[in-house]
Amino acid sequence: MGNPTGAMVVIGDELLSGRTRDSNLHYLAGELTRVGIDLREARVVADDHAAIVAAVRAMSAAHDHVFTSGGIGPTHDDITADAVAEAMGAQIGPRADAMALLQEHYDRQGLPFNEARQRMARIPEGATLIDNPVSVAPGFSIGNVHVMAGVPKIFEAMLAGILPTLTGGAPLLSQSLRVLRGEGEIAAEFGKLAAEYPDLSMGSYPFNLNGAFGTNLVIRGTDPARLDAAMMQLVRLFGEPQ
Amino acid sequence: MGNPTGAMVVIGDELLSGRTRDSNLHYLAGELTRVGIDLREARVVADDHAAIVAAVRAMSAAHDHVFTSGGIGPTHDDITADAVAEAMGAQIGPRADAMALLQEHYDRQGLPFNEARQRMARIPEGATLIDNPVSVAPGFSIGNVHVMAGVPKIFEAMLAGILPTLTGGAPLLSQSLRVLRGEGEIAAEFGKLAAEYPDLSMGSYPFNLNGAFGTNLVIRGTDPARLDAAMMQLVRLFGEPQ
Repeated sequence: MGNPTGAMVVIGDELLSGRTRDSNLHYLAGELTRVGIDLREARVVADDHAAIVAAVRAMSAAHDHVFTSGGIGPTHDDITADAVAEAMGAQIGPRADAMALLQEHYDRQGLPFNEARQRMARIPEGATLIDNPVSVAPGFSIGNVHVMAGVPKIFEAMLAGILPTLTGGAPLLSQSLRVLRGEGEIAAEFGKLAAEYPDLSMGSYPFNLNGAFGTNLVIRGTDPARLDAAMMQLVRLFGEPQ
Repeated sequence: MGNPTGAMVVIGDELLSGRTRDSNLHYLAGELTRVGIDLREARVVADDHAAIVAAVRAMSAAHDHVFTSGGIGPTHDDITADAVAEAMGAQIGPRADAMALLQEHYDRQGLPFNEARQRMARIPEGATLIDNPVSVAPGFSIGNVHVMAGVPKIFEAMLAGILPTLTGGAPLLSQSLRVLRGEGEIAAEFGKLAAEYPDLSMGSYPFNLNGAFGTNLVIRGTDPARLDAAMMQLVRLFGEPQ
């Protein structure tokens, strides 16, 4: 549809062991839809250097923007910055402005700015810092890769800081129609309609609510006039809009 | 750790547009942890033939088991079976036993077994059907790839049917310690402990609950004696177990 494309790399053992349920992908998906960046793929990988390098490298080559979450804290399992540096062919080391931010933060709290905390100032050369209004330790952007924290509140705040700096496209719009018929009954006509509108994406999602079977039909696209036209045909085929 | 490895491929535009929040990855992660299959990676892809083929092929080559969710219904956007067939180099067509199951199901309900519904009997050659106790339309296993529905209730029921047929390993166990100190304060000693136990995985997860900052320290592994030993050292370093 001509919009820039995006991918996400979600990093953390805790997501693959079932300890934690990720919410950053869902949040990012909604925000990118709003600004017109077409999220095409997400990969969830463990706290494993080679796995992070491979995923970031592949996604960076294939898409306009890559968003990562997780692995930028002070502990031994926080290895994202080093892995992203390797993926992007950059050197990495402590950076003066990040050191200063953190030093001031811990001084203010009366906490030691120890070696572990200093690790959070390791930033690949050539990167731009991403502001962290929640807990100071910054994220960073290098090339087309935007590296953010895994804690949802911090991820969301960092994303809010960088989204206005990215060139999006036309927002992805959607309209939906709720039909009290099974997918199998509407499939033939819905498929024909989808074929008539190759510039739109049409999906059907069955539901069963208090014993009532039905299907949500969803049309997505960037051109409001085309969406309206398809929606009118859909309503003519299957019922009233909601 | 010697356990078989697993990967997941989650299929659906609705997850990448932000319409739907996936829950199958989190569910699968918990179940695989229980049966001793080490989930290493997950990929979320759109309803796009080439994207599904590429993800299934890569994950099937890299891991012992691949679990997919989504895209096996009757509508035009349900293209998983064909994509998996191509990824695994198999022919695909309507299969007699799947047709019979579905025919009987729709006859019983007095609903037409139309062309769209017959698409759900398209199964790659050489596959084994996966039972669907919720809505009959089967999933299937071909090679090391297990193809299941996206609707959580059906995904979970299908998974319950196949897990006992897979060879797992030692269940991945975990113990955790909640510490009312920031990650940056425990990082150095926690990192040293992790280095002493290369057979265990240790992670730290900061939290902020009603203004109290703290860190959950988690140790994972398959050998209960090693877990106990590491946990005793952790308690000696940082406090009481909970």
